[in-house]
Amino acid sequence: MTEIAAAAGQWAEEPIKKARTADATVTVTAAGQPLAGKPVTVAQRSHAFLFGSTGFQFLPKGREGEIRLTNLTIDPAEEAEKLARLEEEWFTLFNFVTLPFYWGNFEPVRGKPDTARLLAGAKWFADRGIPIKGHPLCWHTVQPDWLLGLSIDEVRKAEEARIRREVGDFKHLIHSWDAINEAVIMPVFDRKDNGITRLCRAQGRLATIRMAFETARGADPTACLLLNDFDMSTAFECLIEAVLAAGIKVDALGLQSHMHQGYWGEEKTLDVLERFGRYGLPIHFTESTIMSGHLMPPEYIDLNDYQVTEWPTTEVGEVRQADEVVRHYKTLLSDPRVKAITYWDMADDGWLHAPAGLVRADYTPKPSFEAMKSLIKGAWWLAPTEMVTDAAGRVRFNGWLGDYELTAGGKSATFSLDKTGAEARAVDLA
Amino acid sequence: MTEIAAAAGQWAEEPIKKARTADATVTVTAAGQPLAGKPVTVAQRSHAFLFGSTGFQFLPKGREGEIRLTNLTIDPAEEAEKLARLEEEWFTLFNFVTLPFYWGNFEPVRGKPDTARLLAGAKWFADRGIPIKGHPLCWHTVQPDWLLGLSIDEVRKAEEARIRREVGDFKHLIHSWDAINEAVIMPVFDRKDNGITRLCRAQGRLATIRMAFETARGADPTACLLLNDFDMSTAFECLIEAVLAAGIKVDALGLQSHMHQGYWGEEKTLDVLERFGRYGLPIHFTESTIMSGHLMPPEYIDLNDYQVTEWPTTEVGEVRQADEVVRHYKTLLSDPRVKAITYWDMADDGWLHAPAGLVRADYTPKPSFEAMKSLIKGAWWLAPTEMVTDAAGRVRFNGWLGDYELTAGGKSATFSLDKTGAEARAVDLA
Repeated sequence: MTEIAAAAGQWAEEPIKKARTADATVTVTAAGQPLAGKPVTVAQRSHAFLFGSTGFQFLPKGREGEIRLTNLTIDPAEEAEKLARLEEEWFTLFNFVTLPFYWGNFEPVRGKPDTARLLAGAKWFADRGIPIKGHPLCWHTVQPDWLLGLSIDEVRKAEEARIRREVGDFKHLIHSWDAINEAVIMPVFDRKDNGITRLCRAQGRLATIRMAFETARGADPTACLLLNDFDMSTAFECLIEAVLAAGIKVDALGLQSHMHQGYWGEEKTLDVLERFGRYGLPIHFTESTIMSGHLMPPEYIDLNDYQVTEWPTTEVGEVRQADEVVRHYKTLLSDPRVKAITYWDMADDGWLHAPAGLVRADYTPKPSFEAMKSLIKGAWWLAPTEMVTDAAGRVRFNGWLGDYELTAGGKSATFSLDKTGAEARAVDLA
Repeated sequence: MTEIAAAAGQWAEEPIKKARTADATVTVTAAGQPLAGKPVTVAQRSHAFLFGSTGFQFLPKGREGEIRLTNLTIDPAEEAEKLARLEEEWFTLFNFVTLPFYWGNFEPVRGKPDTARLLAGAKWFADRGIPIKGHPLCWHTVQPDWLLGLSIDEVRKAEEARIRREVGDFKHLIHSWDAINEAVIMPVFDRKDNGITRLCRAQGRLATIRMAFETARGADPTACLLLNDFDMSTAFECLIEAVLAAGIKVDALGLQSHMHQGYWGEEKTLDVLERFGRYGLPIHFTESTIMSGHLMPPEYIDLNDYQVTEWPTTEVGEVRQADEVVRHYKTLLSDPRVKAITYWDMADDGWLHAPAGLVRADYTPKPSFEAMKSLIKGAWWLAPTEMVTDAAGRVRFNGWLGDYELTAGGKSATFSLDKTGAEARAVDLA
């Protein structure tokens, strides 16, 4: 670790505890009577904080000839062993998944949506207790070409119908959606003609954002809907102020942080948190990536313009990445407004072939994986710990927000810590 | 002229005529009878298009110790001859003036505003038939330090009172105001602590913009109020969409174009016009500057950070500047949505000591001055022209929008052309 990182680590320790832990007092009874002066074991079972990643690799193999944003989908039959390794790694770190709903991939032929495959993939995660976010409902990139044959009004109706369909079809499995993605540049995006840019240009950003949010809200009134963007400039601030002034209900702000051109550093990250934190909305870091190879040259404005066939991970890069990933997560965890961080592509050779993974392309863990494990299942985790109850049957401990199990004499009970500060709980070992 | 400039010149000729001229038919009578088959002289007297510049140099000398944004104010007693030269040059090109109302200069001591001096300066221009814009009513730069001693609520009340006072006091002389300047960065401006950034941060951009517009509107319901910014990115688009969605009435968009780091070129200018033209609001290019010396290095983000004591004009730079100024004005005049262009500092050694003037620091004209004169009072101007009336007493000509005088037999009458396309007028030589 560099000196700065060490200092940052020091600096972040107390704010993180303040933002993420409770001082728990648990009163233990057995059949209604206080269990006084007995050893009990308390163990954390899950994190309340959403440590997320993409889960595209775990979807059933897609149709032949399908347009892909990444090359990550793997045939489980061919690569079962390798995938099992990734699965174990994935579930070691993560408890929240983002699944792909890029319209151009999802419905390349009008009327033939990829619903069955995605339902199977979503169910696989839901069966493992993982909350899911769908990404994205409205975006100008990876759009179906058939939109180009429609009038503006038809594009709007098709987009509304598609939002209603996806949110409705997945309502029992998916409770969180990027309602709209990158609306700041949506009407002026000029890299590829597409129906959504045409629509946004014609009706304006606010009408498009309202359409996405209100249609999704109508299909699932309880879903968490995000306004997601990569633009961390004043432009996104202005757009947020417009959206709030227009009375559009946003459940969380999605901030991307793809760092293909280098780690932001604490100063920029804190500035972003301060500027986007002042709207009183929960913040999700929706797309975080940090390189373990060379950096993309700074002159690239649109990251997609950097087209390489190979982008290797390096030994020195992996050490740097581990340091930076830790600093990034520590900085974000120290701010209570941040409710989720999604690491974009757990494995290398995903989007842009970037060495952004916490594991390599062969799924062997990088130092960044070990570093994150030592936080998420180490420093930020209560491993099974023996405590002795006092005369009133109480144990006291400082615990990370999440679910817990308390065991004594072969019996157990569960409880949750969901708020910071002093929290009292009572469990009965029946 | 470069080849590109020549091509641009060619390209712009027809659109400019289409956007800026009328096909006039003027029927001339003498004591009610058609003046048939007689020579008459038609001469343009003024432009409808607002060719503006700053007029800070023509204000009476300010108080000692006053904070200045530029070093342009000259004591007329000491520099009468030099100033007379500038005056002649100024009135050759311009018909619209911007006068300074920077609050920190205007009222450095609370309760002692510089009203009398500005009233004298504004009256001097009004007496010469020049419409005036006051700049700016609300901005975060050049603010009085005494605001820092006030609470947010007191700052808001002081700003409202100051807007009411200035707009009210100058209502008979000034009909146009930059109601708010640079609201995009206003709440996140971090170069100098000031009351307006504090206010904007506390209440948000939209509330601050509404405050400025509605207070000014209340003090002068007929004033033309501008939303002015240097930020030509999507940020300003988002802000404009927010302002329109919030129902704040904006009379014109003010787009700055300080080109200390190089001429934008036609492509960027047309892109800006297209993006900001789609809101259906008149566009004023409020602050245009083009260098005739070296360019400011591109790494400067805030132009004010480039601190030099000398920034010389050069011979080669002056030739380039003349070319670029012509291309800039031609590009803008060819778009009918543009209603005004203000050249920022007619003379060198103004803001940042930049060689931005159309005349040098000693007021000798540069090639750019001669080039602009050859447009504004040449190619874009109807010099006194003899025509012969037809049997019905009519003359026909294509004329630039503005005021005209028609003379025959020692008598004259005036008329105006205020719309493009075919326009019929009747004048009687009594």
